[in-house]
Amino acid sequence: MVNINENFQKLQAGYLFPEIGRRRRAFEAANPDARVISMGIGDVTQPLAGAVVEAMKAAAEQMGKAETFRGYDDGGVGYDFLREAIAKNDFGSRGVEIKPDEIFVSDGAKCDTGNIQEIFGLSNVVAVTDPVYPVYVDTNVMAGRTGGAAENGRYDGIVYLACTEENGFVAEPPNDKVDIIYLCFPNNPTGAVAKKEQLAGWVAYAKENKAVILFDAAYEAFISDPAIPHSIYEIPGARDVAIEFRSYSKTAGFTGVRCAFTVVPDGLTAYTKSGDAVAVAPIWKRRQCTKFNGVSYITQSGAAAIYSDAGKRQTQEIIDIYMSNAKVIREALGKFGYTVYGGVNAPYIWLKTPDGVGSWEFFDLLLNKAHVVGTPGAGFGSAGEGYFRLTAFGTVDNVAEALDRISKI
Amino acid sequence: MVNINENFQKLQAGYLFPEIGRRRRAFEAANPDARVISMGIGDVTQPLAGAVVEAMKAAAEQMGKAETFRGYDDGGVGYDFLREAIAKNDFGSRGVEIKPDEIFVSDGAKCDTGNIQEIFGLSNVVAVTDPVYPVYVDTNVMAGRTGGAAENGRYDGIVYLACTEENGFVAEPPNDKVDIIYLCFPNNPTGAVAKKEQLAGWVAYAKENKAVILFDAAYEAFISDPAIPHSIYEIPGARDVAIEFRSYSKTAGFTGVRCAFTVVPDGLTAYTKSGDAVAVAPIWKRRQCTKFNGVSYITQSGAAAIYSDAGKRQTQEIIDIYMSNAKVIREALGKFGYTVYGGVNAPYIWLKTPDGVGSWEFFDLLLNKAHVVGTPGAGFGSAGEGYFRLTAFGTVDNVAEALDRISKI
Repeated sequence: MVNINENFQKLQAGYLFPEIGRRRRAFEAANPDARVISMGIGDVTQPLAGAVVEAMKAAAEQMGKAETFRGYDDGGVGYDFLREAIAKNDFGSRGVEIKPDEIFVSDGAKCDTGNIQEIFGLSNVVAVTDPVYPVYVDTNVMAGRTGGAAENGRYDGIVYLACTEENGFVAEPPNDKVDIIYLCFPNNPTGAVAKKEQLAGWVAYAKENKAVILFDAAYEAFISDPAIPHSIYEIPGARDVAIEFRSYSKTAGFTGVRCAFTVVPDGLTAYTKSGDAVAVAPIWKRRQCTKFNGVSYITQSGAAAIYSDAGKRQTQEIIDIYMSNAKVIREALGKFGYTVYGGVNAPYIWLKTPDGVGSWEFFDLLLNKAHVVGTPGAGFGSAGEGYFRLTAFGTVDNVAEALDRISKI
Repeated sequence: MVNINENFQKLQAGYLFPEIGRRRRAFEAANPDARVISMGIGDVTQPLAGAVVEAMKAAAEQMGKAETFRGYDDGGVGYDFLREAIAKNDFGSRGVEIKPDEIFVSDGAKCDTGNIQEIFGLSNVVAVTDPVYPVYVDTNVMAGRTGGAAENGRYDGIVYLACTEENGFVAEPPNDKVDIIYLCFPNNPTGAVAKKEQLAGWVAYAKENKAVILFDAAYEAFISDPAIPHSIYEIPGARDVAIEFRSYSKTAGFTGVRCAFTVVPDGLTAYTKSGDAVAVAPIWKRRQCTKFNGVSYITQSGAAAIYSDAGKRQTQEIIDIYMSNAKVIREALGKFGYTVYGGVNAPYIWLKTPDGVGSWEFFDLLLNKAHVVGTPGAGFGSAGEGYFRLTAFGTVDNVAEALDRISKI
């Protein structure tokens, strides 16, 4: 008799975004004339940069000719042309040495941050911040690293580090020993960023406890403050304890194109139960070689074009539009009397709901009164209750209209 | 202290194809003038169909314009336009009713056949044929469903069903009870196909034992015999017990483009340990929604073009080239005195090595004497020892030259 993986049954009702979609569709069915504006799911609206489109069209042409056709991306970890561009532009330009061989190209940071836990043992203690991107938690639940969920949604066995107004939404390392730590800066959902000395504290903790930091830097392109690190590898010693995730989804509008990469430095180790150090990179490579088959040549060609002069300029223009949105949203909501965080070095605005209204209650209020969809903070964890996430990824016109409607509530 | 997943350490040296690549590179380094021809790794050589190229270029254009830009493929399970084309052309045309909602589009059958085991419990007993596509086995080893490997490469805890000349390389259901059964027809590596009554025997076994069949039909497009089923769902009752995997990699030259799909029928159930039936499709959907974010819109547009009139004609022409290669290889090797199987309804030729020579020994012989790379049967399991896989995916010229060289050994 085939058994189901019963860990899936510990998961709480629906992944956050399908639940939001469900409520939105129900509202639209009941109010067919309402034009709902989404500031909820973090999907982008600006078209791809011209340099990216042209590179993908040229690559598609190449795939149609015998002389230039490409089959499997040998090894499935990314073409050299892309990994070299990443090493140079994303790291070398910031004084960080990452070798192309330490870069693993994939079809998304969601996949990578979801899959990475597979290469670690089931007995590790996992720490996450709260609020948190649900994928980190749910994939550990599915794998069996947790017990069931308590009434506040927290899973038994996971260490939650609350991010609050008091700590500026940047958690400090715990007093307890943990083994695997998920950090995301610029943060989804709070928009908070970590200073160098804060990340240095985490690196020191990881070294002392032989822990590994899974550092999600998917939003680094939105950092405007030159003092804020874009990569955890800007912190001395981080190479020994941290894996970093990057994505083109928000940086270059690739949510519908699918390309990302993960850095696993040489020399990063984990341990057998008997205490022997094992290099992590070959294990991740083996995982990827066995369960993944690389990213489309056409997609990788488009990603490489982001690093051309035209590509850099065009993608920066797109980011500028979103960050201008963020500024408009932040300032308008402030004027309306809301307390808001984020939106300066991140495309997310973290709004404190007024008068202690619950997150989902505020969601329904905004949907019903302003026909605007946002994301309830509670959907990211119990410490997100009383907060609400708005994204800056809308069109300029939609952002203006949404704010106008919110002003009238 | 962070623990590594020690199951990875049970895996035997290297995934098969990297090992072949290593030997090939070593040979080429020592013999820089030799022009090695690959009939080893199952990668294709014909360029993409024109209809596919044009559809992808048009989709890239759309992604570059605000009005037609597409972000996330909502839900990450595939656009309706593709799932409807699949339901109609791959199943409806053969009298099989599969609903678009039962189809989950992905970036590869390797990913899907590797990931599917995650949704089942760790205590299930897994059965595979021997020889077998290594991904089925290795992903179960990584997940912890096995013990270590014996000297013959077989992992403790897995039930191996030998496919031999005696049973025509189609295994019968075992006498033991197993819970998860991987079947692949047309078979990689043997090229064998299963008749309807043989698959019916497996469906009956699965029903009787409440087992699930994971049916890999990645090579169905190469079937030439009209009596051979293309889908396991052509067998009455298979909907209740089988998940089917399909791929465009070989069908339409998508090894470098990455698109595939998996069918999980409504009503297919697995069981909790206390015996309650649980629908499998929502669990797979939850897994995909959480750890995957859909396939590029450009890629899905290209895949949909395969089902256009021009796309069908052009991809059939490509398949005809490969199957003509298969016929040439099969007949030539027969003339040279080799015993060969497969190559009629599959792009793989399964050659019996002469005089009981070992698979890897034959690999080295072919590489050194004919500068031809094939795949040692032993790489697919101990029952593959004494066999050798050749693929029909080379160019017509390379196939002719490779056969000429082999004739001179």
